[in-house]
Amino acid sequence: MRRTARILALTMVAALAGAGFFGRGPATAPTPSEAAVDAAATTGNPLDAIIQQRGLTPDEAEAALRTFVPPGKYDDFVMLASGGHSGNILVYGIPSMRLLKTIPVYAPDAWQGWGQGSSDAAEVLRKGSYRDGLPVQTWGDLHHPQASLTKGKYDGEWIVGTDKSAGRVAVVSMRDFKTKSIYKIPNVSSDHHGVFTDDSEYVIVSSFFPEPYDSPKGYAPLEAYREKYRGMVSFLRFDRTAGRIVPAESFQIELPPYFQDLSIAGRGPSDGLFFINSMNVEMATGGSLEGKPPMEIGASQREMDYLHVIDWRKAEAVAKDPAKTKTVNGMKVIPLATVVAEELMHFVPESKSPHGVDLCPGGEYVIVSGKLDPHISAYSVEKIRKAIAEKNFEGKDAFGIPILSYDATIEAHVETGLGPLHSVFDGEGNGYTSHFLDSTVVKWTIGPPYNPADKGWKVVDRVSVHYNIGHLQAPGSNTRKPWGKYVVALNKWSVDRFPPLGPLHPQNLQLIDISGPKMRVLSDTPSIGEPHNSMMMPVELLQAWTAYPEVGFDPLTMKTSEHATQQGQEKIVRQGNTVTVNGTLLRSHYTPDVIRVKQGDRVVFNWTNVETARDATHGFGLHGYNVNLSIDPGATERAEIVANRPGAYPFYCTEFCSALHMEFTGWLLVEPKS
Amino acid sequence: MRRTARILALTMVAALAGAGFFGRGPATAPTPSEAAVDAAATTGNPLDAIIQQRGLTPDEAEAALRTFVPPGKYDDFVMLASGGHSGNILVYGIPSMRLLKTIPVYAPDAWQGWGQGSSDAAEVLRKGSYRDGLPVQTWGDLHHPQASLTKGKYDGEWIVGTDKSAGRVAVVSMRDFKTKSIYKIPNVSSDHHGVFTDDSEYVIVSSFFPEPYDSPKGYAPLEAYREKYRGMVSFLRFDRTAGRIVPAESFQIELPPYFQDLSIAGRGPSDGLFFINSMNVEMATGGSLEGKPPMEIGASQREMDYLHVIDWRKAEAVAKDPAKTKTVNGMKVIPLATVVAEELMHFVPESKSPHGVDLCPGGEYVIVSGKLDPHISAYSVEKIRKAIAEKNFEGKDAFGIPILSYDATIEAHVETGLGPLHSVFDGEGNGYTSHFLDSTVVKWTIGPPYNPADKGWKVVDRVSVHYNIGHLQAPGSNTRKPWGKYVVALNKWSVDRFPPLGPLHPQNLQLIDISGPKMRVLSDTPSIGEPHNSMMMPVELLQAWTAYPEVGFDPLTMKTSEHATQQGQEKIVRQGNTVTVNGTLLRSHYTPDVIRVKQGDRVVFNWTNVETARDATHGFGLHGYNVNLSIDPGATERAEIVANRPGAYPFYCTEFCSALHMEFTGWLLVEPKS
Repeated sequence: MRRTARILALTMVAALAGAGFFGRGPATAPTPSEAAVDAAATTGNPLDAIIQQRGLTPDEAEAALRTFVPPGKYDDFVMLASGGHSGNILVYGIPSMRLLKTIPVYAPDAWQGWGQGSSDAAEVLRKGSYRDGLPVQTWGDLHHPQASLTKGKYDGEWIVGTDKSAGRVAVVSMRDFKTKSIYKIPNVSSDHHGVFTDDSEYVIVSSFFPEPYDSPKGYAPLEAYREKYRGMVSFLRFDRTAGRIVPAESFQIELPPYFQDLSIAGRGPSDGLFFINSMNVEMATGGSLEGKPPMEIGASQREMDYLHVIDWRKAEAVAKDPAKTKTVNGMKVIPLATVVAEELMHFVPESKSPHGVDLCPGGEYVIVSGKLDPHISAYSVEKIRKAIAEKNFEGKDAFGIPILSYDATIEAHVETGLGPLHSVFDGEGNGYTSHFLDSTVVKWTIGPPYNPADKGWKVVDRVSVHYNIGHLQAPGSNTRKPWGKYVVALNKWSVDRFPPLGPLHPQNLQLIDISGPKMRVLSDTPSIGEPHNSMMMPVELLQAWTAYPEVGFDPLTMKTSEHATQQGQEKIVRQGNTVTVNGTLLRSHYTPDVIRVKQGDRVVFNWTNVETARDATHGFGLHGYNVNLSIDPGATERAEIVANRPGAYPFYCTEFCSALHMEFTGWLLVEPKS
Repeated sequence: MRRTARILALTMVAALAGAGFFGRGPATAPTPSEAAVDAAATTGNPLDAIIQQRGLTPDEAEAALRTFVPPGKYDDFVMLASGGHSGNILVYGIPSMRLLKTIPVYAPDAWQGWGQGSSDAAEVLRKGSYRDGLPVQTWGDLHHPQASLTKGKYDGEWIVGTDKSAGRVAVVSMRDFKTKSIYKIPNVSSDHHGVFTDDSEYVIVSSFFPEPYDSPKGYAPLEAYREKYRGMVSFLRFDRTAGRIVPAESFQIELPPYFQDLSIAGRGPSDGLFFINSMNVEMATGGSLEGKPPMEIGASQREMDYLHVIDWRKAEAVAKDPAKTKTVNGMKVIPLATVVAEELMHFVPESKSPHGVDLCPGGEYVIVSGKLDPHISAYSVEKIRKAIAEKNFEGKDAFGIPILSYDATIEAHVETGLGPLHSVFDGEGNGYTSHFLDSTVVKWTIGPPYNPADKGWKVVDRVSVHYNIGHLQAPGSNTRKPWGKYVVALNKWSVDRFPPLGPLHPQNLQLIDISGPKMRVLSDTPSIGEPHNSMMMPVELLQAWTAYPEVGFDPLTMKTSEHATQQGQEKIVRQGNTVTVNGTLLRSHYTPDVIRVKQGDRVVFNWTNVETARDATHGFGLHGYNVNLSIDPGATERAEIVANRPGAYPFYCTEFCSALHMEFTGWLLVEPKS
């Protein structure tokens, strides 16, 4: 088995090093079946006339009826998808695949006033940056939004999203779907993924790129990669009341300088364990102009990479012992030597350069997809625990981490196809794996106790997608409560699936019906940004506010704002060179609507929207000074400028709010100095 | 007629001054009709089983089949919608209403690399700002995207979008759907709208807020509003080869300090005329904390505002005479006194505070909707020309502009409903008007030659929308070639139409089928941003590139880039403290992938994506230095940083591009100074 995988993998690396392997031909546009047209002509069903007129095949007509959500009705599920390097989170409805919302996180959003003049958002972005001479980050690469869990099930409370570009974790409340905090994780420059533990005690974030974090000035030459660069996994205590990371109760575990990739926290039989995929155990560093192979060759030399198995409850105890940790940049770190000495981590060989590590609903099996191996590998948690207990090792890595016997831990291989990446699960004992190269979703059966032994680990169906699927997702997959019904394929390329709108193509989200014995692609949805991964939950779990619970509410702290102004209490206060405007907004005027300052004044705007009606959001768009606030009903929002240039600057409500919205205006008058 | 309108309007102002007039009740969710369920049980049609299972009414099932666009097929039309204060343009497919693309214009977009580290985008944003001590603008309020016209019809070449927040005009190419330039119009701080002339000779932009542009330091106290503040209409010469505004061939016309709102350029019988709505001819300035009425009261005192009718070809000739113009901030301006002396402009009374001014397809009638008047008003261009010729005036405004006789210019009133805002047209002699207060779209017939005299100017149908519609749009409306078939209602509020996702609600785009005698709402689509207005054209008009025409292409200039690097020519060049990286990207590596610099170096990255395959976009996400480039196949993109902080900074491809995408990485090593 392993030999075969290796040969195939090497062949594929050679093929992949070229550029021409993608499906680039035009989509075969289905033509209406003759049968359908004939039927329409004879049945007299009024719907058949439309089907005929629009040239829909029977399958297409069925898909139309299965995906349409009538005006005024709600979708069954929402999908929280990452926006990738848009730095935001996208919320889609399923089955309509309508984009219901975007949540700005790491990048400003002028419409929502996020980072576009809002003092609070500016502070969140500033705090969530590297600092020490580096610019405030105005983007992030948000790959894997994670919804908070209570006892292993979605609770509709929080979303976290980590940032591959800067090693950060952002917290979003599902009450108002706004970002509350961004935490820059010390000692790492990157992460790919962060997950909640089964009861949201921790957000666990593994670094992707290693970093010489403990070297002087954070620098070590690339030649010292093996000695000085280190990976890291961060156990960040999550305060689920405040929706904040608590650094003082968090700790980190130093890892070898591999690329640590996706991860999953155990549940049930795997409770207390944490699994991380890795790649580049070769420790290649590139150097194409320096006579070395490029990374995609250098990082694909070895047959296997290592699945990291961490006993995190044991690590949590070790982290409490000051003798066993060091503190670097304010964070407790368990050094690699201690990891070895305390037996906190074991490796399991895994097919090289894997993408997905997924846990079946009950927590019994870890599914790994080595993208250069045409199989998925299922590891038994029971066997892993046994191999650890029996010290059934086949060696150690260069840093002394014991490597468990592959044969002792593997439960099954399933030959699913080329380029397997990720697996999700329904509630009926099936797994679904994406295949980047084959452009397929393949359905297979999980072994006992999900299916009888002779029915388990078998491919039972496959469906083509378009094109080059990365992640896929199903409602409640990778939790204790999967709902099944749909899979969404998050395809990376769309090629010719949508009308030509320039060289930047959208990605393609394909909705797949998995409710029957045969999977069926229902619809194509182009997506803005790069929805890397997602989570899906029933719409009934949503418990969001539709207006803020009181007038004068601070969306950031989710408490009454100290800067709130009630109607009738509006005023303009000058103190030295600072002019503070404590004002209100109500259809269709600002109070005050004329603000007179002098050139050079600092002007602080505290605006409270005193509306209580659902949907009565107002804006504060100030000409010239680059400010636009979006002020939801009940909210207090703040902005601050220095009135450097004299002139008459209009401001106006940017959110069309009433028939007299166009009159919802005011003036900031900046009198010249002399 | 006028008296009735006045009484009704005053009543409405009183009502609107309150806050509680919106439809706030829950949507009445349609229940499946008994008939449909019964039918499904008996017909044996497989589609009926789905209809029954999903509880669709017959109308809903029909809508599903009318709006569904099967996987891999294209929509019939694209809608270019503004993103409002998102500062971008949204592209939707019709009838699926799928969001096909967003085009970043005034605000950065990390996904597309626009303003997120790209040197070129940064320069476009910088040039397109006020300057003189004001910050670089990173948002805009893009209300009315306009597609370029050739002889009055869409040509699929360019889009312009003006910015209400800063008086700017941006040009987007429909070859690559990217922004090419942003032009800050001198002497204005705002605009609401800009339109192409019939053959795209000019983009004509009227200011919304007046400005004391010709006062010392650009400032005049609000008390000098009447004397010193001026509105402006800018005739900006459009170079359709380069896609740029040509300031030297442009001119401005000074206007009274009213709020000039929407506008339309004539065609056919109205060729050479330009029409602008106005509001606040009261010249109210607010002052709610200073004992004055708020703007929505102050600006609604008079019965009528003034439709501005400008003879722009005559103005163009006057602008060429230096004796008749002044030059302010580099722009030729025709002063208000010259406007009067040369008879360049006339007013026509119009129902107060209008929103829409629209021109029927042949150019014979101007349709104005005073939002406080329950009628729409149709003015005859022939009658306007006659009244001008005969000097049939009913007075002059305070600035000496002659006011044409209302009775002599009006052709018809149509009583359409409460809160009429905007009108669009099909190709069969019908107009469609949105009503903000009634939440309706009302269909009416245009008079001769579109319909016989006895059939014209009649309401023929109305349909309810949800809720509070602003603009509406139909394919090719306000051009010489309307296509009919659909109207999209751009509704401002969605209230409870979508699942609760926080206090900021989406807007609601409703697709209406206008192909039959009765209009029918087909679908609801939540929208991100604020799609204020839009333009719709058949997908066949698109002629976009799907990859750049050559490797090393500069998307900004649309020519070969002087910074392009061909494969095999990659190098790193140091010159003093500047390190220039001339590199390439090709699945799945950067050349070079290791870049060594010293702390304090300026580093210039010139990256060329040497791919030629459709959809093979790559990214350059650089940790720590806040850079993310999106580099389309063939494109050369540039970024520049100062390497202030030492460390090992990974960079990686942010656009998932191949099975070895995760290996598509590199290192920027910043060695400490000492």
